[in-house]
Amino acid sequence: MKTFKFLKNKYGVELLIDIGTYHDIPNYFFESELHHTDFYELIFFSKGNGYLELDQQRIEIAPHTIIFISPFQKRKWFLDKTKVESYFLFFQDSFLSNFFSDKLFSYRLQFFYNKTKPLFLLVNDGFFSQLVTIIQELLIEIKTFQSDSEHIIRALLYLMLIKLNRAYADHYRLSSETENNSIAFMFKEILQNEVSKVRNIDYYAQQLGISRVTLNKCIKKQFGVTVSEMVDEFILFEIKSLLSYTKLNINEISYQLQFSQANHLTRFFKAQTGISPKEFRNAYQNGSSAF
Amino acid sequence: MKTFKFLKNKYGVELLIDIGTYHDIPNYFFESELHHTDFYELIFFSKGNGYLELDQQRIEIAPHTIIFISPFQKRKWFLDKTKVESYFLFFQDSFLSNFFSDKLFSYRLQFFYNKTKPLFLLVNDGFFSQLVTIIQELLIEIKTFQSDSEHIIRALLYLMLIKLNRAYADHYRLSSETENNSIAFMFKEILQNEVSKVRNIDYYAQQLGISRVTLNKCIKKQFGVTVSEMVDEFILFEIKSLLSYTKLNINEISYQLQFSQANHLTRFFKAQTGISPKEFRNAYQNGSSAF
Repeated sequence: MKTFKFLKNKYGVELLIDIGTYHDIPNYFFESELHHTDFYELIFFSKGNGYLELDQQRIEIAPHTIIFISPFQKRKWFLDKTKVESYFLFFQDSFLSNFFSDKLFSYRLQFFYNKTKPLFLLVNDGFFSQLVTIIQELLIEIKTFQSDSEHIIRALLYLMLIKLNRAYADHYRLSSETENNSIAFMFKEILQNEVSKVRNIDYYAQQLGISRVTLNKCIKKQFGVTVSEMVDEFILFEIKSLLSYTKLNINEISYQLQFSQANHLTRFFKAQTGISPKEFRNAYQNGSSAF
Repeated sequence: MKTFKFLKNKYGVELLIDIGTYHDIPNYFFESELHHTDFYELIFFSKGNGYLELDQQRIEIAPHTIIFISPFQKRKWFLDKTKVESYFLFFQDSFLSNFFSDKLFSYRLQFFYNKTKPLFLLVNDGFFSQLVTIIQELLIEIKTFQSDSEHIIRALLYLMLIKLNRAYADHYRLSSETENNSIAFMFKEILQNEVSKVRNIDYYAQQLGISRVTLNKCIKKQFGVTVSEMVDEFILFEIKSLLSYTKLNINEISYQLQFSQANHLTRFFKAQTGISPKEFRNAYQNGSSAF
C-alpha cells in the first residue's frame, strides 16, 4: 500500500500544515489504488462526483461534502477528476499539540477516528461559504508567509475545526462537549494505539488511573456506548481492515489480533455483523459495500 | 485608587473573558477617577471623543481608535459618554495561558506592557469592520453559551489579537515576530515584575540562564534597544507613576525603588527626561501633559 508522508519543508520553513486546491497537487489526489497518509486531511468539495472508500465506509461525493480523514485511514477514490473542484487542508497533529497545552485536542474532535459515524458531512450553502472564506484567508496567509503567519494559520484552523465539530456533533447527534471529559478522549487515544494487542478493560482503566466503573461512566457520557461496546467496535474495525486490505487468512488475523483461537474470532465477527469473515471478504472483493 | 476585578462567574460558568458594548456596563466605563483593573482590556471605538490618560500617555479618542490596556495600568477617562459607541473585550491571561503551552503568549504581543509606544492604534475602515465582524461573532457566542463555546471564543480572540499585533507592529515599525525570541519576552515579564526591586542586569541574565551578551542580543533584536535602555525605561516608568499617582516624596520614592540616595534618582530622572522630578509632578498636577 502506498503511504504519503507530509512534506514539512514545502514552504521553505518547517510548517506542519498545508492548504490548497485539488489543482495545486493533482498527482496526489484521488488515487484509486489503496493508500494512506501520516497526516490529518480535510477535503471540501465545491463540485464533486463519484465516491470514496474510506476505511470501511463508502462515501458518495456531492457538492458541499466535507470529508474527514485521520492519519493511516486507508482509502481509494472513484471519481471523475475532470469534474472536481475542491479545497484540501492537511495538517500534522503537532501543528496544534505543540502549541496547545491540551495534547488531546484532535482526539476530542468527533470526526477524527470515529469508527461508527460517517466520516463526512454535507453542509448547507451558508456554512460552506463561511468555511470557504476561512480557507481563502488561510490560502493568502500561506502564500505570503511572514514570521507571525503560523499564529494566524493556527487560529483559523482552530476556529474551523471547532465549528466543524459543532456542526458534525449536531448532525449526528453526538456531544459537542470537548472540555470536561478528558478520560474519554484519552481512552480513545490509547485504545486506537493498543486495541490490536490488549482488550482487557482493566488494563485501560489502570493506564488511566481510574476504576472500571468510572471509565464506563465517562465513555457512556461522551460516546453513548459502554466501554465493552467501544472496545468491540475497535476490534471489529481492525478485523475488517485486515480482511479488506490484506491477504492474511483467518488464522493469521486471529494471531495478529491476539485471539486465542481462530473460531473465537469467527464467532465474535458473526455476532457483531451477522456474516462470517469469509463472506465479508468475498463481498468486499466483489466490490459490494457489505460494510 | 479603585481596582476593578474581573467577574469570573457572570455567565453562570467560570469564564475568563467578557465582551460587550459600552452600554452593557455603563457604570464601569469611562471613570475620570484614577483606577485600574486586574485584566486585559481592549476597547474599540466606533464613535468617540475626548481623551484617556493611560499610565503616562494621553490618548485622544476618535472613531476607529483601539485602546490596549494591560492589568494594573492606571487610567482616567475624560470624554462625553453620551457621544460614545464602543465595544469592549476583557480577558484574564489564564483564558489563553491555561490552554496554550506558550505561557508567555500575551507578553509577546507588542501592545501589552509597552512602555515606549502609544497604547492605541487608529485603523482604517476596512480593518475596523473586519474586527467588528469578529466581535459580533464573539457576542453571539457568549450570549448563547454552549459547552464548546469556550473554544470558539478562544479561537476568535487568538485570531483577533494576532491580527492586531501585526497591524500594531506594522504601524509602529516593530517586529511582529513572536516565535523565536522567548528570551526577550521572558525578560519583559520578569522585568515588569521585579524592576522596582532589582536593576542588576546580571541578575536577570542569571534568572534566564544565559549570558549578559546573549540577553543583550535578544533584546536588541526584538525591541531595538539595549538591555540597559530597557531597564532604564521601566524604572523611569515606575518613578513617573509614583510621582503622578501618589503623594510620596522623592526620598520615599527613592527608598521604594532602591536608589541608594535621593539625588541619584533626581540625576537619573533629569538625564532621561530633561526635567526634575518636582517639575514633572507639578506639570502633571497642573494637568499639562508633560509626560
